[in-house]
Amino acid sequence: MPIDPTAELEITAFEWVPRFAQGQVRDLRPRWACEEYGLPYKVRLVSAIERPEWYFQDQPWGQVPFVRDGEVGIFESGATLIHIAEKAGALPPVGSQERASVLSWLLAAFNSIEPFVMEFVNCAVFSRTEDWAPLRQPSLLETLHGRLSRLETALGDRAWLAGAFSIADIAMASILRALPDPAVLAAHAALAAYVERATTRPAFQRALAAQLAPFAEHDPSKQKEGA
Amino acid sequence: MPIDPTAELEITAFEWVPRFAQGQVRDLRPRWACEEYGLPYKVRLVSAIERPEWYFQDQPWGQVPFVRDGEVGIFESGATLIHIAEKAGALPPVGSQERASVLSWLLAAFNSIEPFVMEFVNCAVFSRTEDWAPLRQPSLLETLHGRLSRLETALGDRAWLAGAFSIADIAMASILRALPDPAVLAAHAALAAYVERATTRPAFQRALAAQLAPFAEHDPSKQKEGA
Repeated sequence: MPIDPTAELEITAFEWVPRFAQGQVRDLRPRWACEEYGLPYKVRLVSAIERPEWYFQDQPWGQVPFVRDGEVGIFESGATLIHIAEKAGALPPVGSQERASVLSWLLAAFNSIEPFVMEFVNCAVFSRTEDWAPLRQPSLLETLHGRLSRLETALGDRAWLAGAFSIADIAMASILRALPDPAVLAAHAALAAYVERATTRPAFQRALAAQLAPFAEHDPSKQKEGA
Repeated sequence: MPIDPTAELEITAFEWVPRFAQGQVRDLRPRWACEEYGLPYKVRLVSAIERPEWYFQDQPWGQVPFVRDGEVGIFESGATLIHIAEKAGALPPVGSQERASVLSWLLAAFNSIEPFVMEFVNCAVFSRTEDWAPLRQPSLLETLHGRLSRLETALGDRAWLAGAFSIADIAMASILRALPDPAVLAAHAALAAYVERATTRPAFQRALAAQLAPFAEHDPSKQKEGA
């Protein structure tokens, strides 16, 4: 496992999040890339509950991940994936179709799929008791299924979106596995199989275990008992 | 103006769109980048109204832009911006803070700002007669204003997001100017000034004129008269 307190690359993650978010926080994405490429990284934990104001200078929305690589700071999980792939020499050469495909699918994950997934999570989980949420859900689901059908067609019988497994798959699989209703993905069998294929990779499993590890120690209910 | 029918780089755009979309279609983004970097490009027009099914093989959602550069095809406007900047030698060196900042802000535009802007456009324009739209709008506006306040703070007194003007500014300014209600941006004076600064650049003005140019010729109401 490439977690190494002496590593140059540092990923900022949350010390604890509520159970529904555990295993879904976005530091999972650069962790997964580091595991795939064998890049050592260390971890800095910040509080998600009392988000320190100084942290907004690293990450403008106070979210994770923020990645520091020596003197260089990077935010937005998509940008951290590009940085890590470039550092590892895992991004295909400039001007190649392979690079264009990785970047096209990476941006597709972040701009053409995740916005609908996130609004669906908002409808179905965070805002489910709001008056608008049940009214919004049918048309949103229709749009989302439309996108997923096109994605399924584009994937075809290939294992991965851009030829070899890439940061585009880290992004897309991470986004698709965040769907809170298993029926949505199950309606697109090839995509369900794609997510299964991605998340059974040992690198994903190590990254997931590494995200979950600090949560028990920093569980606020347990800390109260010890206080 | 770098439009050149013999250019290697080809941008696919729509031959005509309804008036509310004119000047907002996303092929404006790679056109703007080509104008900034003096890269010649040619244009391929497709119908937005009768979207040809073959076009989905180039662009999985049937949207524009799609960019072809010789043998290489790129989709998603964010990916086309990265491709064009790399082709023009306008992306800072791998491993530099400058590159990390450009990519961080580029991804921020596409994943942390545009999803809220697009859902606001959906509420306020496309779906305004749906029962959920007026109910959703207040909380969405609150989230959007929260993001814009943080963006304003992060921009500070700098002219551009990542040091020198970059593809991150092309993306962010294009997204902010799509806000249909001028009051939203006006509440963030520094961002309104930023969009003004970006869109008065001659390269933007040329790109905008080039997007608008074919619409008169392909206006379906005028074609009917001629038929």
